[in-house]
Amino acid sequence: MSSALADHIAGVRLVDNHVHGYWLTSGDRRRFENGLNEANIDPLADFDSGFDTQLGFAVRAHCAPLLGLPEHVDPQTYWERRRESTEDQLARVFLPAAGVSDWLVDTGLPGAIGGLAEMADVSGSAVGEIVRLEQIAEQAAAAAGDYADAFRRILHERTATAVATKTVLAYRGGFNGDLSEPDERAVDAAAARWRDAGGVRLADRVLLRFGVHEALRLGKPLQFHVGLGDRDCDLHRTNPLLLLDLLRQSGTTPIVLLHCYPYEREAGYLAQAFNNVYLDVGLSINHLGARAEAFVARTLELAPFRKILYSSDAFGPAELHYLGSALWRAAMAAVLTGFVARGQWSEPDAIRVVDLIGRANARRVYRL
Amino acid sequence: MSSALADHIAGVRLVDNHVHGYWLTSGDRRRFENGLNEANIDPLADFDSGFDTQLGFAVRAHCAPLLGLPEHVDPQTYWERRRESTEDQLARVFLPAAGVSDWLVDTGLPGAIGGLAEMADVSGSAVGEIVRLEQIAEQAAAAAGDYADAFRRILHERTATAVATKTVLAYRGGFNGDLSEPDERAVDAAAARWRDAGGVRLADRVLLRFGVHEALRLGKPLQFHVGLGDRDCDLHRTNPLLLLDLLRQSGTTPIVLLHCYPYEREAGYLAQAFNNVYLDVGLSINHLGARAEAFVARTLELAPFRKILYSSDAFGPAELHYLGSALWRAAMAAVLTGFVARGQWSEPDAIRVVDLIGRANARRVYRL
Amino acid sequence: MSSALADHIAGVRLVDNHVHGYWLTSGDRRRFENGLNEANIDPLADFDSGFDTQLGFAVRAHCAPLLGLPEHVDPQTYWERRRESTEDQLARVFLPAAGVSDWLVDTGLPGAIGGLAEMADVSGSAVGEIVRLEQIAEQAAAAAGDYADAFRRILHERTATAVATKTVLAYRGGFNGDLSEPDERAVDAAAARWRDAGGVRLADRVLLRFGVHEALRLGKPLQFHVGLGDRDCDLHRTNPLLLLDLLRQSGTTPIVLLHCYPYEREAGYLAQAFNNVYLDVGLSINHLGARAEAFVARTLELAPFRKILYSSDAFGPAELHYLGSALWRAAMAAVLTGFVARGQWSEPDAIRVVDLIGRANARRVYRL
Repeated sequence: MSSALADHIAGVRLVDNHVHGYWLTSGDRRRFENGLNEANIDPLADFDSGFDTQLGFAVRAHCAPLLGLPEHVDPQTYWERRRESTEDQLARVFLPAAGVSDWLVDTGLPGAIGGLAEMADVSGSAVGEIVRLEQIAEQAAAAAGDYADAFRRILHERTATAVATKTVLAYRGGFNGDLSEPDERAVDAAAARWRDAGGVRLADRVLLRFGVHEALRLGKPLQFHVGLGDRDCDLHRTNPLLLLDLLRQSGTTPIVLLHCYPYEREAGYLAQAFNNVYLDVGLSINHLGARAEAFVARTLELAPFRKILYSSDAFGPAELHYLGSALWRAAMAAVLTGFVARGQWSEPDAIRVVDLIGRANARRVYRL
Repeated sequence: MSSALADHIAGVRLVDNHVHGYWLTSGDRRRFENGLNEANIDPLADFDSGFDTQLGFAVRAHCAPLLGLPEHVDPQTYWERRRESTEDQLARVFLPAAGVSDWLVDTGLPGAIGGLAEMADVSGSAVGEIVRLEQIAEQAAAAAGDYADAFRRILHERTATAVATKTVLAYRGGFNGDLSEPDERAVDAAAARWRDAGGVRLADRVLLRFGVHEALRLGKPLQFHVGLGDRDCDLHRTNPLLLLDLLRQSGTTPIVLLHCYPYEREAGYLAQAFNNVYLDVGLSINHLGARAEAFVARTLELAPFRKILYSSDAFGPAELHYLGSALWRAAMAAVLTGFVARGQWSEPDAIRVVDLIGRANARRVYRL
Repeated sequence: MSSALADHIAGVRLVDNHVHGYWLTSGDRRRFENGLNEANIDPLADFDSGFDTQLGFAVRAHCAPLLGLPEHVDPQTYWERRRESTEDQLARVFLPAAGVSDWLVDTGLPGAIGGLAEMADVSGSAVGEIVRLEQIAEQAAAAAGDYADAFRRILHERTATAVATKTVLAYRGGFNGDLSEPDERAVDAAAARWRDAGGVRLADRVLLRFGVHEALRLGKPLQFHVGLGDRDCDLHRTNPLLLLDLLRQSGTTPIVLLHCYPYEREAGYLAQAFNNVYLDVGLSINHLGARAEAFVARTLELAPFRKILYSSDAFGPAELHYLGSALWRAAMAAVLTGFVARGQWSEPDAIRVVDLIGRANARRVYRL
C-alpha cells in the first residue's frame, strides 16, 4: 500500500455529519445483539445472533483491540469484557478513538442516550445539533394557536444554534407522490385533524410536505433519511429518485441524502445532477463491515468528489461511533490505493479526496 | 490463498436447497445451447450461441475435465464428447461430483427430467421434495367438491413427506398489489370462475393469495421465485421489496427468497429485517459464471450469515447440478479469502460461515 | 498481466456505435468543466469543479499525455495547454488516437459540433449516421399533408444511407405506460394537436409510440437512450425493464439499449431474454473513470457476449472521443485478465470476446 496515502487516511480528523447518542445505561446481551441489527424491529430469533453478521464480525475485528482483546476474539469473551465497563466508560474509549473533530448529532431519537453535552464531554470534540422536522411538528401541534406559525417559530428557535435539519419522511409514507408545497389552508385543515386525533405519530402528507418546504426556505442543510433503515419504512419507497420533482424545486438549500443503501448509485447520480445535493455513507458502512469497501467504491462513481460526506450514523453501542470511522478509513484506503495502483488516480489527488470527503465538504456545507 | 479455508471449502458437503431434475432423454445441440440460456423463451438466434455466455464459458472451464477434456476446450469438442454419453451417464458423472449430501427437489416442472428416485440413485445422496403451490391449485381445481377444502387436503397430503412448498407468484402477475389473505367467499367465487374457464393456467390473484396463506399456515418453509427467470415474468414486478406487506404478516414460517438477481441486495435487507426470511443464491450463480464471485460478495452484505442458503437451481443439463457447486466454492473461496487477507474476518470465522451457508442453515430450516 | 491479451486489447480497432460530434468553436473554462458533467443542467456551482469527478480525473490521467503533459497534471496546467489549440486541432489529436475504425454518429443534437464530414476528416475513419426519430417527427410536423405519411417518407429518405435510428423516449415521459402501436386515427388527431400547438417539443405519447413502431417496421437497428442522462429525464422511468411489453412485440429489429447506468444489470438480462436486444456501455464508461472497470464487469454478467457493444457517447470535448476508448480498453484488460488469472476464462476466449464487443458485434448488427 502506498504509505503516504495510508498514513494520511489513518490520521485525518473527520467530521461525522450524522450521528446519534451512545447508550447511557447498561443492558443485557440481548440488547447488545439487537443493537447490531438495523432492519429488524422484533427481537432476534433464538437461533440467530447479532454477532453473525458483517457488523458483528467488524466489531470483533476492529473494536476488540480497544478493549484489550485480540482481533476477532470470540463473541462470548467480547461480551464479557464489554460488560465489565459502564456505557459511559465504553464511550470514553470508543469516541475519542474515532478521530472525529466534529459530531453533528441528530437529537430526535428517544431513549437514554447521550446528548450534545455528553458527546462533547466523552470525546473532547466539538458538537453541532441536527433538528428533526417531525419533532418540531409535534411541538407545533402541542403549542397554542396557528400550527404553521408555531412550526415556523419553533423551527427558527431550535435552529438558531443548530447546523441542520432532518426529515424522516422515508418512514412516514416514503418519497412517492406529491411533495410540492401545500397551501396554508390545506396546512390549517390538516393540522386541525391531527390535533383532533390527539398524539398519533405524524403521517399526514400535507404537514410533512409543509415541514420540508419550511426547512428548504430556512436554508440550513436538510438531511433526508434514504434507503437502509428498519422495516417500518417501505424500502422501495425511499429510492431517492422519487425525490426528483422536489429536488427540481429545492433551490440552493443543501440536501444531504443519508445512508442510501441500496440506492447509493442513484443518490450519486442526484449529487451530480443538482448543485445542492450531497451523498452520505453513514449507517451503511457499519452494517456492511468487510463489504464497506465495495459500498464506498460505488459512492465514488457519479457523485462529484465535493459532494460526498462521511458519517457513522452510530446509535446505541459506543462501538459504532468508532467503527464507522475505522471501516471508512479501511475502505477508502483499499479503494483509493487500487485507483492509484492502476494509474487512474495520482496519490496527491487521492489524499485530497480523502480530505474533501472526510472533513472539508462537511465544513463547507455546515459552515463549521 | 489460505489453505485451511480453501481445503474446507473444497470439501464441505452441501445441501442444495432448490434444484430440479436432469434431462432423461438425449437431445440435439440446439437443445443443449438453449439449456444454457435462462431468460429467452424463443430458440436462440442463428447468429448466437449458448456457449458465448458466462455460463457457457463456465461449463467449458469446470465441466470439461470431468468428461476427460482439458479446461476451456472448444465448444465443438465439448459437444461431441458430451453426446457420446446418455443423459443418465452424464448425471452419474456430474451429480456425485457436486459434493451434495441432500438435494431438495422442486418437482413441479414438466418434461422428461429425473424425479426424486433418479436424483437419489445417480448421486447416492439424500433427496427431499418441494411441492409447488400452483400445482396443488390445479389438482384442487380438478378435484370434486369445495376448492378450498380440496386445496388444504392435497396440500397436507403432499407435504406430509415434503420438506417445503414453493410459489411461482412471480410468474403469475408478480409481487405488486394486494397479497393479503382472501376470504372464503372470494376464494369460492374465484375457484368457480377458474373451473368454468377450464384448464387455463392459474393467474387468478385471489387463488394465488389463498395458496400462499395456506402454505404460511402449514408452517413448512415456503420458497418464492424472486428475480431472474424467463421473460414470461416481468422482472421489475419480482423485486422482493414488493413482498414487504406480506412478510410483515407472515409470522414464523420460513420464507426463502430464491435466485434474487438483480435484487440480491434488497433480498439481503429482508433477510436482516425479518426473523423468518432467507436469501438463496441459486440459478444466479450458474448464469453468472466468472461473475458469481461478485454476486456471492453482494449476498454477504446485509443478510445475517445464519440466513443465507446454497442452491444450484439446476434444471436440464446435468452439468448444472455440478456447476452450481463448483462456482459457489470458487466464489466463496475468492470472497472469503479476500476478507481474511484484509484482516476483516478471521479464518476460523470464514470456515464457520462456509458451513452455515453450505449446509447448516438449510439443515436447520428444512429440519433435515 | 497476460501480455497477449493486453496487447490485443491495446490494438483492436473499435466500432464506436453511438457518438456525437466534437465542439467546433472555442469556449471558456466554464464550458469545459460543465462539459464534464452529464446530469446537471445548471452551470456548476462556484464551489464545485468539473475536474473533481471521476471523469475529470480520467481526463488528466489519460488525455494529458496526448497534449504533451504528464499524467495527472493539475487542472490549471491542463486547461492552459488545452486552450493553446483550437477545437479542430484537439479533435485531430484525440479522435485518431481512439483507435476507432467506424464512428456511428447521432446527428440529432444541436449546436456547433462536428458532423459526419468533420468526424471522418479529422479521424481518417469511416462514419455512419444515426437518425433521431424525434427529429423526423419535427420534420413531419413541419411538412405539408398527412403527418403519418410525411413521417414515413422522411424516415425512409433519411435512413436510406443511415445505419440506425434512435429514440429519446426516455426524455419524453419515460418508458412507463402503454407503448403499443397507436391506430392511424389517434396519430392523426395527435398530430393535429401538436401542429396547432406550434413548435413545442414533442412529448405526445401517441406520436412517440408511432415513431418507435415505424422504426421497428423499418428494420434498421433502433437505439434507446436508457438510464444516465441529464436530469430532464426521470431516471427511474428509464429502467429498461419498463420496455418489456414493447420488447415482447418488437420482432427481429435490433434494439440497442444505450448507456444503461445504473440499470446495466437489468439491460443485460434483457439482452439474454430477447434475440434482438443489445447492451451498450457508452457514456457510463467516461463518467465512471476509475470505476469504469466495475461497470464493464457488471455488463459481463447475464448479457451474452454476442449482444454487447462498445461506444463512447462522446459529445463536446474531443477528449471524450478518445477517453471512452482508453477507459474501455483499461477496464476490459483489468476485468478479463482477472477472469483468466482465476482460471474462469481462457486467454484465447478473452481475446475473442474483446473482438466481439469491440467491433464484430457492431459490424454484424449495423451491417458495416
